[in-house]
Amino acid sequence: MILKRNFNPIKVFGYVHREIIFSLLVSMLVWIIFEFKISAIALPFSISAILGSALAIFIAFRNNSSYGRWWEARTLWGGIVNSSRILARLIITFTDSHSHQANYEKERSESFKKEMVECCIAWAHALRLHLRKQDNWEELQTYLSSDEFDTLTNSQNKPNFLQLMMGRKIYQAMSNGTLGGFDSFQMEGQLLALANYQGSCERIKNTPLLRQYDFFTRLFLYAFMLLLPFSLIGDFGRMEIGYLVIPVTLIISFVFAILAKVGEVNEDPFENRITDVPLTALCITIERDLREMLGDKDLPAPAKPFEGYLY
Amino acid sequence: MILKRNFNPIKVFGYVHREIIFSLLVSMLVWIIFEFKISAIALPFSISAILGSALAIFIAFRNNSSYGRWWEARTLWGGIVNSSRILARLIITFTDSHSHQANYEKERSESFKKEMVECCIAWAHALRLHLRKQDNWEELQTYLSSDEFDTLTNSQNKPNFLQLMMGRKIYQAMSNGTLGGFDSFQMEGQLLALANYQGSCERIKNTPLLRQYDFFTRLFLYAFMLLLPFSLIGDFGRMEIGYLVIPVTLIISFVFAILAKVGEVNEDPFENRITDVPLTALCITIERDLREMLGDKDLPAPAKPFEGYLY
Amino acid sequence: MILKRNFNPIKVFGYVHREIIFSLLVSMLVWIIFEFKISAIALPFSISAILGSALAIFIAFRNNSSYGRWWEARTLWGGIVNSSRILARLIITFTDSHSHQANYEKERSESFKKEMVECCIAWAHALRLHLRKQDNWEELQTYLSSDEFDTLTNSQNKPNFLQLMMGRKIYQAMSNGTLGGFDSFQMEGQLLALANYQGSCERIKNTPLLRQYDFFTRLFLYAFMLLLPFSLIGDFGRMEIGYLVIPVTLIISFVFAILAKVGEVNEDPFENRITDVPLTALCITIERDLREMLGDKDLPAPAKPFEGYLY
Amino acid sequence: MILKRNFNPIKVFGYVHREIIFSLLVSMLVWIIFEFKISAIALPFSISAILGSALAIFIAFRNNSSYGRWWEARTLWGGIVNSSRILARLIITFTDSHSHQANYEKERSESFKKEMVECCIAWAHALRLHLRKQDNWEELQTYLSSDEFDTLTNSQNKPNFLQLMMGRKIYQAMSNGTLGGFDSFQMEGQLLALANYQGSCERIKNTPLLRQYDFFTRLFLYAFMLLLPFSLIGDFGRMEIGYLVIPVTLIISFVFAILAKVGEVNEDPFENRITDVPLTALCITIERDLREMLGDKDLPAPAKPFEGYLY
Amino acid sequence: MILKRNFNPIKVFGYVHREIIFSLLVSMLVWIIFEFKISAIALPFSISAILGSALAIFIAFRNNSSYGRWWEARTLWGGIVNSSRILARLIITFTDSHSHQANYEKERSESFKKEMVECCIAWAHALRLHLRKQDNWEELQTYLSSDEFDTLTNSQNKPNFLQLMMGRKIYQAMSNGTLGGFDSFQMEGQLLALANYQGSCERIKNTPLLRQYDFFTRLFLYAFMLLLPFSLIGDFGRMEIGYLVIPVTLIISFVFAILAKVGEVNEDPFENRITDVPLTALCITIERDLREMLGDKDLPAPAKPFEGYLY
Repeated sequence: MILKRNFNPIKVFGYVHREIIFSLLVSMLVWIIFEFKISAIALPFSISAILGSALAIFIAFRNNSSYGRWWEARTLWGGIVNSSRILARLIITFTDSHSHQANYEKERSESFKKEMVECCIAWAHALRLHLRKQDNWEELQTYLSSDEFDTLTNSQNKPNFLQLMMGRKIYQAMSNGTLGGFDSFQMEGQLLALANYQGSCERIKNTPLLRQYDFFTRLFLYAFMLLLPFSLIGDFGRMEIGYLVIPVTLIISFVFAILAKVGEVNEDPFENRITDVPLTALCITIERDLREMLGDKDLPAPAKPFEGYLY
Repeated sequence: MILKRNFNPIKVFGYVHREIIFSLLVSMLVWIIFEFKISAIALPFSISAILGSALAIFIAFRNNSSYGRWWEARTLWGGIVNSSRILARLIITFTDSHSHQANYEKERSESFKKEMVECCIAWAHALRLHLRKQDNWEELQTYLSSDEFDTLTNSQNKPNFLQLMMGRKIYQAMSNGTLGGFDSFQMEGQLLALANYQGSCERIKNTPLLRQYDFFTRLFLYAFMLLLPFSLIGDFGRMEIGYLVIPVTLIISFVFAILAKVGEVNEDPFENRITDVPLTALCITIERDLREMLGDKDLPAPAKPFEGYLY
Repeated sequence: MILKRNFNPIKVFGYVHREIIFSLLVSMLVWIIFEFKISAIALPFSISAILGSALAIFIAFRNNSSYGRWWEARTLWGGIVNSSRILARLIITFTDSHSHQANYEKERSESFKKEMVECCIAWAHALRLHLRKQDNWEELQTYLSSDEFDTLTNSQNKPNFLQLMMGRKIYQAMSNGTLGGFDSFQMEGQLLALANYQGSCERIKNTPLLRQYDFFTRLFLYAFMLLLPFSLIGDFGRMEIGYLVIPVTLIISFVFAILAKVGEVNEDPFENRITDVPLTALCITIERDLREMLGDKDLPAPAKPFEGYLY
Repeated sequence: MILKRNFNPIKVFGYVHREIIFSLLVSMLVWIIFEFKISAIALPFSISAILGSALAIFIAFRNNSSYGRWWEARTLWGGIVNSSRILARLIITFTDSHSHQANYEKERSESFKKEMVECCIAWAHALRLHLRKQDNWEELQTYLSSDEFDTLTNSQNKPNFLQLMMGRKIYQAMSNGTLGGFDSFQMEGQLLALANYQGSCERIKNTPLLRQYDFFTRLFLYAFMLLLPFSLIGDFGRMEIGYLVIPVTLIISFVFAILAKVGEVNEDPFENRITDVPLTALCITIERDLREMLGDKDLPAPAKPFEGYLY
Repeated sequence: MILKRNFNPIKVFGYVHREIIFSLLVSMLVWIIFEFKISAIALPFSISAILGSALAIFIAFRNNSSYGRWWEARTLWGGIVNSSRILARLIITFTDSHSHQANYEKERSESFKKEMVECCIAWAHALRLHLRKQDNWEELQTYLSSDEFDTLTNSQNKPNFLQLMMGRKIYQAMSNGTLGGFDSFQMEGQLLALANYQGSCERIKNTPLLRQYDFFTRLFLYAFMLLLPFSLIGDFGRMEIGYLVIPVTLIISFVFAILAKVGEVNEDPFENRITDVPLTALCITIERDLREMLGDKDLPAPAKPFEGYLY
C-alpha cells in the first residue's frame, strides 16, 4: 500500500513509458508529414472525441471494478483482524470461566489458551503466504509444535489444514473439560467467519478481472493514441502551431494511459507488490493484539512504512 | 474463464463479424455515392454524437449489469467452496468428538465421515451439471451408493434431492449416536447456506438480463452504425479525404460493437462456454480440499487452463 | 418476463406511439415553416445537446433504479424458492428423525408433513395473488382444509394469516410429539425469512419509484422532442437537406423515448403484465420441488413461455 | 410520498421560483445590453458546456445519494413492518404453545398477548413521532397502562424506553410461566432487529447529506444560470433571434434547477412533508396486521392518499 | 460534521487558495502575452474539453469513494449506538430476570449493572480517542475502577482491552449467579458486533483512499488549470474580449478545484476536524441513552453544534 502523498516522476514514467514512447513517435511522425504539406492526413477532431468517450466507459468501468476488488480484499482482511481478536477473546474468557469447576487444571488451561491463540496467529500468517504464493513456511515454526508443522508442510491447502486443526483442538478441550457447555458452539461462529474470509480472498486471487476488459482497454487506448495526433494536427496546423501537436498529444496520452494503468495495478491485491493490501502489517497487528490479550509484554514492533510503502 | 492476456484477432473478429461487414458495406456505399457528387446525403456530425451518447447509456448499463451477474455467480461459487469446506470440517470434527463416548463405533463413524464428505462433493458436481444443463450424471456414480444413484437419476431437481439425502443422513447419525448434542443444529447452518447458493445460481441461470436491454442495444448499435458514415462524410469530403471515411467508420463501429458484445458474453455464466465461471475447476478444488481433510493422499490433479481458458 | 430475443416492431411502436406522433408533427411543422424562408426559427444545436445531457442524467438514473427494483423483486422470489425448499426439507427430516421414539405415530407424522408442505405451497401462491391484487383465492382450496380456507378468505392480509397458521401448526406438533427438541427453533428461521421476503415484496409493490423522477423525465422528454427539430433545422437547411430533419428527428426521438420507456415498464414487477417477475412460473417451481421432496410422483408440468413471455 | 402521476405546474413553479426569476432577470438584462450593440459581453458557448458538465457531476451525485437515503429509510420501515409482524406472531404462538402446561392461566396469557402486541404497535407510533419531532404523545395513551404512559412521557428517548419495557415484560412472563424454554431467546432476535432499525432511522434523521454537496450545488447552479445567457447570446445574436435567448435560458435553467431540487426534497425523509416516507400509513398497516393476528375484528381503516399524497 | 447551510466565502477560499492563485497567475500571463500579439500560444478549446472529461472521471470516482468512506464510518458509529443500547438493555433485563432466584443479591446485581453499562460507555469514548489518536485517557477514569484504569493505560489497543474486560465480567457474573442460563450467549452477540464495528473503523482510519487517485487528481487538476487559459484565449481574442479570459478561467478553475477538494476533506472521517463524523456528539448520545436506561436522572447535556459544526 502506498502511503506517501507525492510520487517519484521517474517511477510514474516507468509505469507508462511504453505508451509515452509510442505516442511520441506517432505525433512526431504526424507533424513531420504535415510539415511536408501533406495535409490530407488530418482527421476531424470529432474522431478523437467519440473514441475518447468510448474509451472512457471502459476506463471508468475498470477503475471501479479494480478498486472494488482492492477494497473488498482490504475489508476481508479487516474482518480477519476482527474475527481473530474475537476468537482469541472467546478462547481466553471461556477457558478462564471454568476455573471454578472441579476438573479445572490451571496448567492445561493456560497451555490450551497459548496454543490456540498462537494457532490463530499462525493461520493469519499462513493465509498471507498462501495468497502471495510465497514459500517461507518456516516462518510458522514458532507457532506450532514440530509434529503439527510437519503435517502442515505436507498439506496442499495450509490455512484450511490449520482450520481443521483448530477445530480438533476445540473438541479435544471440550471432551477433557478445559472447555464446556456451549463454548465450542460460539467459537465455531468465528472459525466459520475466518473460513469464509479465506475463501473470499482465494476468489479474488484466483479470478482475474475479466480479461476482456483488460485486453480491449489496452487495445482501444493504443487506437486512441494512434488517431489522436491525426485528429489534432488539422486545428494546430490551421493556427500555425503545428509543432505543439507533440507536447499536447503527449499530455493527453499520458493522462489516458495513467487512467488505464491506475486501475490495472490495483486489480490484484495479493502479489507482494507496493500496491498490495498490506498483509504483512495486518498480520503483525493481529499478532500484537492477540499476544497482548494473552498477557505477553514482549510484543513484536508494529510495521512501519518503508520509503512510503507498507507491505 | 479467459486467463490469457492477449486475444486471437481472428476470434475477436469472429465475435463482431456481422457488425464489421455491415459497417463496411454502408461506409463504402456512402463514399461511392458521395464521390458521384451527391453531397446531399451528408448529415451533420452532431447526429452521431447524440445517438452515440444515448447508445453509451445502454452499453454502460449493460456492461455493469452483466459483469454484476458474472461476479455474483463467481461469488456464489466461492461461497459454495467455503461452505463445503466448513461442512466437511464439521462432519469430521463432530464425528471424532464423540470418540470417547460409550456407544462410539469407529467403523460406523469413519464410514459416515466418508459418505457425508463424498455426498458434499457429489452435490457440487451435481449443481455444476444442473446449471450447465449437461446430462452425464454417471460422473456422480463414484460418490454414491448404487441405490442412492438410482433414486437420484429419477428425480427432477438433483442437487435438491442430494440436500434432502444429506439431511436424512445427519438425523440418522444423530439417532444412532454417530453424532450427538447440537451437532445437527450447526451442520444445518451449512446445508442452509448451500441451499441458498443453489437457489441464487438457478436465479441467474433462469432469468436472462432483461431482454429489452439486449434488443434495444442491438437495434441502436445498428442505427448508430448506419448513420455514422453519413455524418462523417461531410467533414471528410470537405477535407478531401473522403475515402478515409471507410477505415474510420470501421474503427469506430468496431469499438462500439466490442463494447456491446463484451457485456453480452458475460451475461450468462453457466453455459459451458469459454466465458463461463470455471465450475469444473472449482468442483475439482472442492474435491481436492475435502478429500485432503479426510486424509486421502491420492488427490485429483488441479484443473489447468487449456489454451488460456479455464472451464 | 420476456424471453424472446426479438421484439415485434408494431408492439414496440405501440409503447411509444404518442412520442413518435408528437415528434412527427413538430418536425413536419418546423420543416414547413422553414421552407417558407422563415429561418428565424432555427436554434443553435447546442440547445439540444445541453438538454439531451440533462435528460440523460434522469433517464440513466431511472433505468438503474427501475432495473434495481425488478432485480430485487426477482431476488426476493429467488429467496422464497430457497426458503420454501429448506423449510420443506426441515419439516420432512425433522418429523422423520423422531421415528425411533416411543410416541411416534406414523400416520400423524405423515399427515403433518403433507399438511405443512402444502401450507408452504399455499403461502407462495397466496403471496402471488396478494401482490398482483388478484382475487381467485379459490386456487388455494386444494392446499387447505375447508375450515382453514374459510378463515383465510375472511382475513385481510392472507399470506400473513398463513404464516400465523404455520406457526401454530409447528407448536401443536411440538406439544404432541410429532416434533421435538429444537425443531421449532430451526424452523422459525425459515418462517422469519419468508416473512421478511413478503414484507420486502410489499414494499416494492406499495412504493412506486419516486413520482418526481417519472413526471420530470416525461416532461423533459417532451421538451427535448419539441426543441430538437428547431435546433436541427439550421444545420440541415444550410446543407440543403431540410426535409431530412423529419426522419432524423424521428430516429433521435424514438431512441430517447425508448430509453425512457424501458425503465418505466420494469418499475413495477408485480402487475400481471408481460414485464412482470414470472411469479406463476416460480410458484410452479416451488410446488414441483416441494411435492417431489414429499415423494409425490404426479408433479404439475413446469411453466412454459407463451409467445415468448413467461408469467 | 407522492402518488399522483401529474403535478400541479404552479406548485412546481413554487419550488423553483427563485431560480426562474433570477434567470429571467439575467437573461433580459443580457438581451437588452446586447440590443444596444454591446456585443463584447458575449462569451463562447463552451463556457456553459464545461460548467454544465461540472454541475452535472454534482447533481447526479446528489440525486443518487438523496434517493439512496429515501429508499434506505423506506426499506428500514419495511423492515419494521416485517419485524413487528414476526414479533407479534412469536408472542401469540409462543404464549399459546404453553396452553397444555400445568401452570397455564388463560387470562394471564391472553392479557400478556394483548399487552405485548399493543406495545409493539405503540413502539412503531412512538418511533414515527420521535423521527418527525412531533409532540402528540397522547396518541400512545390507548396502547399503554397509565403508569407506563407516565414514565414514558418523562423519558427522553421514548422508543428506546418502550424497547426496555418490552424486554422487561418478556422476562417477567418467562419467570411466571406465561412463556418458557427458549421463547425469550427467539423474541430477542426481533427486539434486536427493531432496535437496529430505530438506530438507522435516527442516523438518517440526524445526519444531513454532507452540506458541502448542498452548498456547492446551489452555488454552481447560480454560477451556471448567470453565465448561461452570456454564452448563448453570441450564437442567438448572429442568427438574429436575440430575443429567443430569454425563453431558451429559462427552459435550460428550469431543467437544471429541477434536477437540483428533486434531489433536495428527498434528502430528509422524516420531516412531515409530502415527500416523506409515509410513516403514518405504515404505522396503520402495522396496527391493522397485528390487531388482526390478535383476532380483533374492528381494525382501523387503511390510510388513503389525500390529494395524491400519502403521509 | 458541518450543519450550517451557507459557508463563509473566506473559509472556502482558504481551502482552494493555492489553486486560485495558480490559476490567476497563469491566466494573467496568457492574457499579457496574447496582448503582445503573440497569438501562436492559443490552443484549440477541444484540448480543455478532453482533459476536463478525463479529470471528471477521476473527480467523480473520488467523490463517490470518499463519500462512501464517510457514510460507512457514520453507519458504523450508528451501529455502535444501536449495539450499545441493545447490550445495555440485555445487561439490565437479564440481571433483573434473576431477581426471583434463591441466590439473588440485590446489591451485587445493581453494581454489576452499573459497572457493565459504564464499561460500555467507556468503550465508546475509548474508541473515539483511539480513532482520533488523542491522548486524554483520563476522560475514562470516571467509568472504571482505579485498578482497571491503570491496566488500561498500559495496554496498546485500549478498546480491545475493554472488550476483554467486559467479556471477563460477564463470565464472572455467570459463575456467581448474577447472570445465568443463556445470558452470556446472547450478550456475546453484541460484544461481537461492537468488536466488528471497531475493526471496521480502524480499517477506514488506517487505510487512506488509494494514494494514486489523490496524487493524479491533483496532478491532472493542475495540468487542466495550466492549459485552460491557453485553450480559451483563442476564442476570447477573436471575440475581442481577451481580458475576460482571466475571470472565466478563475471561475472554471474554482469549480473544478472545489469538486476535487470536496472529496478530499471527507476522505478521512476520524481526524478531529470540522468534517469529521461527529464522534463526540455520538458518544454523548450513547451516554445519555444508557444512563437513562439505568435510571439516572442527571444526564449529560446533548451535544450542540458550535458555529455550525458538530464534533
